Amino acid sequence: MNRTCLSIILAAGEGTRMKSTRAKVLHEVAGLAMVCHVAETAAAAGSTRTALVIGRDADAVAAAVGGAVAGLSAHVQTERLGTGHAVLAARDAIAEGFDDILVLFGDTPLVRPETLARARETLAAGAALCVVGFRTATPQGYGRLIEENGELLAIREERDASEVERRIEFCNGGVMALRGDIALDLLQAIGNANAKGEYYLTDAVEIARARGESVRAIEADADEVLGVNTRVELAAVETIWQQRRRREMMLQGVSMIAPETVFFSHDTEIAAEVLLEPNVVFGPGVSIGTGSVVHAFSHLEGARIGEDVAIGPFARLRPGTRLAEGAKVGNFCEVKNAEVGAGAKINHLSYIGDASVGAAANIGAGTITCNYDGALKHHTAIGANAFIGSNSALVAPVSIGASAYVGSGSVITEDVPDDALAIGRARQVTKPGRGREIAERNAAAKAARGKPSA
Amino acid sequence: MNRTCLSIILAAGEGTRMKSTRAKVLHEVAGLAMVCHVAETAAAAGSTRTALVIGRDADAVAAAVGGAVAGLSAHVQTERLGTGHAVLAARDAIAEGFDDILVLFGDTPLVRPETLARARETLAAGAALCVVGFRTATPQGYGRLIEENGELLAIREERDASEVERRIEFCNGGVMALRGDIALDLLQAIGNANAKGEYYLTDAVEIARARGESVRAIEADADEVLGVNTRVELAAVETIWQQRRRREMMLQGVSMIAPETVFFSHDTEIAAEVLLEPNVVFGPGVSIGTGSVVHAFSHLEGARIGEDVAIGPFARLRPGTRLAEGAKVGNFCEVKNAEVGAGAKINHLSYIGDASVGAAANIGAGTITCNYDGALKHHTAIGANAFIGSNSALVAPVSIGASAYVGSGSVITEDVPDDALAIGRARQVTKPGRGREIAERNAAAKAARGKPSA
Amino acid sequence: MNRTCLSIILAAGEGTRMKSTRAKVLHEVAGLAMVCHVAETAAAAGSTRTALVIGRDADAVAAAVGGAVAGLSAHVQTERLGTGHAVLAARDAIAEGFDDILVLFGDTPLVRPETLARARETLAAGAALCVVGFRTATPQGYGRLIEENGELLAIREERDASEVERRIEFCNGGVMALRGDIALDLLQAIGNANAKGEYYLTDAVEIARARGESVRAIEADADEVLGVNTRVELAAVETIWQQRRRREMMLQGVSMIAPETVFFSHDTEIAAEVLLEPNVVFGPGVSIGTGSVVHAFSHLEGARIGEDVAIGPFARLRPGTRLAEGAKVGNFCEVKNAEVGAGAKINHLSYIGDASVGAAANIGAGTITCNYDGALKHHTAIGANAFIGSNSALVAPVSIGASAYVGSGSVITEDVPDDALAIGRARQVTKPGRGREIAERNAAAKAARGKPSA
Repeated sequence: MNRTCLSIILAAGEGTRMKSTRAKVLHEVAGLAMVCHVAETAAAAGSTRTALVIGRDADAVAAAVGGAVAGLSAHVQTERLGTGHAVLAARDAIAEGFDDILVLFGDTPLVRPETLARARETLAAGAALCVVGFRTATPQGYGRLIEENGELLAIREERDASEVERRIEFCNGGVMALRGDIALDLLQAIGNANAKGEYYLTDAVEIARARGESVRAIEADADEVLGVNTRVELAAVETIWQQRRRREMMLQGVSMIAPETVFFSHDTEIAAEVLLEPNVVFGPGVSIGTGSVVHAFSHLEGARIGEDVAIGPFARLRPGTRLAEGAKVGNFCEVKNAEVGAGAKINHLSYIGDASVGAAANIGAGTITCNYDGALKHHTAIGANAFIGSNSALVAPVSIGASAYVGSGSVITEDVPDDALAIGRARQVTKPGRGREIAERNAAAKAARGKPSA
Repeated sequence: MNRTCLSIILAAGEGTRMKSTRAKVLHEVAGLAMVCHVAETAAAAGSTRTALVIGRDADAVAAAVGGAVAGLSAHVQTERLGTGHAVLAARDAIAEGFDDILVLFGDTPLVRPETLARARETLAAGAALCVVGFRTATPQGYGRLIEENGELLAIREERDASEVERRIEFCNGGVMALRGDIALDLLQAIGNANAKGEYYLTDAVEIARARGESVRAIEADADEVLGVNTRVELAAVETIWQQRRRREMMLQGVSMIAPETVFFSHDTEIAAEVLLEPNVVFGPGVSIGTGSVVHAFSHLEGARIGEDVAIGPFARLRPGTRLAEGAKVGNFCEVKNAEVGAGAKINHLSYIGDASVGAAANIGAGTITCNYDGALKHHTAIGANAFIGSNSALVAPVSIGASAYVGSGSVITEDVPDDALAIGRARQVTKPGRGREIAERNAAAKAARGKPSA
Repeated sequence: MNRTCLSIILAAGEGTRMKSTRAKVLHEVAGLAMVCHVAETAAAAGSTRTALVIGRDADAVAAAVGGAVAGLSAHVQTERLGTGHAVLAARDAIAEGFDDILVLFGDTPLVRPETLARARETLAAGAALCVVGFRTATPQGYGRLIEENGELLAIREERDASEVERRIEFCNGGVMALRGDIALDLLQAIGNANAKGEYYLTDAVEIARARGESVRAIEADADEVLGVNTRVELAAVETIWQQRRRREMMLQGVSMIAPETVFFSHDTEIAAEVLLEPNVVFGPGVSIGTGSVVHAFSHLEGARIGEDVAIGPFARLRPGTRLAEGAKVGNFCEVKNAEVGAGAKINHLSYIGDASVGAAANIGAGTITCNYDGALKHHTAIGANAFIGSNSALVAPVSIGASAYVGSGSVITEDVPDDALAIGRARQVTKPGRGREIAERNAAAKAARGKPSA
């Protein structure tokens, strides 16, 4: 579409029912602030300019959205006199002149780009104003959309609706598109001659009609217009977001045994023919290549994962993890800020942090990279085909050469050259009969004090 | 309310459909025996005296309830002659004289205190008897509540109901309140002249009416009167309990990304502005202070957690854990019977048991407190600002002083004074070329026997 | 039933909507290929001979089913000319002569043996053909079952149905049973004189009726005839399979706090009075004896578990694990190919692989069996009542005798006789004041470079 578009996002609310120390719109869905979802959706629908109407936590809200989209201006709403008044806080932005104006809500993060695009197309087809509605079998409390011959005549609030009108199941979803050339006129014509003395954005419908303009309603899915006022509703919106994303992923070829137990981040990227077992949680910044499998009970964040990689069960990948083709990270392993080469294996109870692991290297069970000395983090470099014996401690900064071999139970403090063997462990001392003596002493102690648990 | 109240809890059932070695009412919901939920709910509704009618596993049931509420008497029901007969097992308790008598069921744990309070208020307003009912679109099989002008005329069983009565969707939920001054008279008037020869508590309604007393029904939510007969129904009741609690928590300001994956214990206490990520399981005895976060895949039990604490992912806190403000317990860490000071960090693959960890101490990855010698548990004391190098074993009883530093990979068997450095590890030996020799020998062995897996 | 039975399973589809590199019917439900579920269900309904009609990935599909049931023949369908044509690919098998022929679909894995048995009984009672139908309130798109006086007259496709017929909610589920003596005649009589020029199996109904044969329909649950075309539908079928199995398990006496978080394999066997906490995932080959408990966040595969065993939380049991009565495997422990004796304890952060652990042995926290030397796996034998101190590395092949005692933090490379004490750790060196010097140096370094995270 060649038309220019401004999105006005109303995000000034207190959100007191959230019982939160943060503004409501900063609460996250899929790891992204609700208001950022709205801004990104508008951008996906072709909006290039965002006017953010803010109040509580104004700086934090503006900063969050500024990190999500370009072309942002922030407008502080000082008084709370209704949605019509709120939109006019962005008067300067509207006055810049746009073909389309979208009015969106920072606490309504599920609206789809396709829906906004349809609203804009409705303007392009001649309407001055387009309201996004939804259908519900329980319309009580919502403004009803009164239509005639395809034109939207009015948005009738519950209290003003006739018996017949109350039976209408097509309701106002809040989101509105206005033609830019007339938007400011319409908005400024909204009055506050009502019981609460507020300026209602919905009045723009009848004002436009009175001027002989065409006003239309389009239908969105009911879940697109769900607003969030409590943490219960926030969780409900998160659930819908996750369900949508799981479905998209599966239709693209990702397998999930129990999709309801897999939680994506807003930016998770997964190739086809990846299997996600039950109970996988994604933080931001994860991509996974085709043929890989994430076993149950895994937690991934900031990890770029190649093809045919096996992860988990019970694996944690932290930011800066890079796993090359065919690598494995197994149970009770943590990997952080580490480059792991093709076919390398970190299979059991290991911590690999601030490290590079060469291709086909084998990291034994219980290996720990001792990366922190109390002040700084240091690097551990492990060469290709190296073998790190189980229960070893690699005290960084340290380098283990290619094809080097570290004996089990070693503490490695000095670099190991390529092809070398390194061992750092004490010699075993065995004392016949002493074990039994200890056992007998222990039995006596137990008898004296009661057997301790666990 | 100033009125005195006795709760009679019927808990004598065999519960054969549970296929269990324990009495049905001992099976737990949110970690608490069903019958204890009922007793606690009655207490919350102002009941100060509980008469427990028991049969199977009588001692265990009485002991469980005795641990939950005060003012308990146990009454063994020897014969099974119907609910009317069962209640009379508590005849002595009734005869003590109470304003209100509540009749409750040990296998119906979801009834709310507010509902019982309303039933009592109905007695206070003059009714001799109050039946707790519920509405359902599928009333088949339930006793219908026959009302006229606000009075409950009768509870009509399905088989005795007329065509018109069967269409009634207001049904008997079982729970009943009786005015204490008349309760024994009513109960003793119940006969057994019916097909099964049983004494039906529900007959008390018509008996009271026949005496000119007022009888009322109040409405509860259908889930409040769900009874448990199988483990399938037990799980369904657990689900409802958890949903209620999650909703309460969220409305109080606790955030949950996926509430359906968080499982509370009956006594879990969580402050506002705590974030619970997906998949958190609570055992009994946990409290969490504001600003804390519990990351995914964490299991908490018997832990008192301060403010701004970070737990998990993949953390297990066991009984006796105390985490002060700003402490961190990270992945694959187990903490048991340990006091952890403000800002202390136990971030990776560690076992800290029977220990104290000073403020701002740093416990390296893979640290193990060796607390058990085969007979007794011993204490490990770690001072403030101490640094425990990764993969260390602290052999208790042992004390690491404040600001002490333990080198990575050490086995510490002797106390380390404040400010001291302690190292207990072998010197590394490196043999050039030997690693490659091993690799070549290994390659030959693999070729000879086939490459083993994992 | 004494009648012989052949099952023809149609499994030639491309399954393009799966977006998969494998044939659709190889995708798994509860860890078993869909087509194997169908074959096993037919066998459970008394079928002793399976004719598999295959196309894509023919060899892999035949191999999978061959591993599930005996008496298999594979028939490649080269052209795709409709279901009637597909069934005739198995012409040779039909011609062997069976009392009953079942026609099943490889992508419809939820059909119950009881349903197939009822279809066969319908044939035994005289019908030439029996169609398995299901009821739905939304029959749009399904073939309607036109019945009269208990006889099935026709299967009417949506496009050919009259207004009245479209209101019928009894629909064709696909599965069909044919009497063997007439099956081939009926199938060969199916023509392709229709819009698509395909041979429709459903035409057999009217052909049989025209020959004066009795044709019947029986009703199955709607979920039994769910077919899988996408990974979304695959996940939906998995959910139903799991729900069925959980319900069966609970009715048999298994307790689950949150059944929806427990995922069984097709072959999981669990005794009564076992408690499964939330979030337990079963791979194939697991059995658990009565009185055991699997705590939250556990992953079990190929493990035979005795009575009164405690597992988890956060435990992983891998193939070859055998746990005797009263054994315990605790948090962050991995056990693989290991025989664990009665009452033995592996409680914390351990890897026990390729090992035997004697009765009542105690494996300390952080113990690692170093089973892999880079080429081969070696065995670790731990005797009864042995005590392995925490953070020990047992370098296999190695044997620890009965009642032997290994000091904490030891690396054990040589066999330890019965009753002996073995220690392999360095002596501690403590340097007063040096810890503080390091701390001060660290503080300076932090100040210079900024405090690193985690």
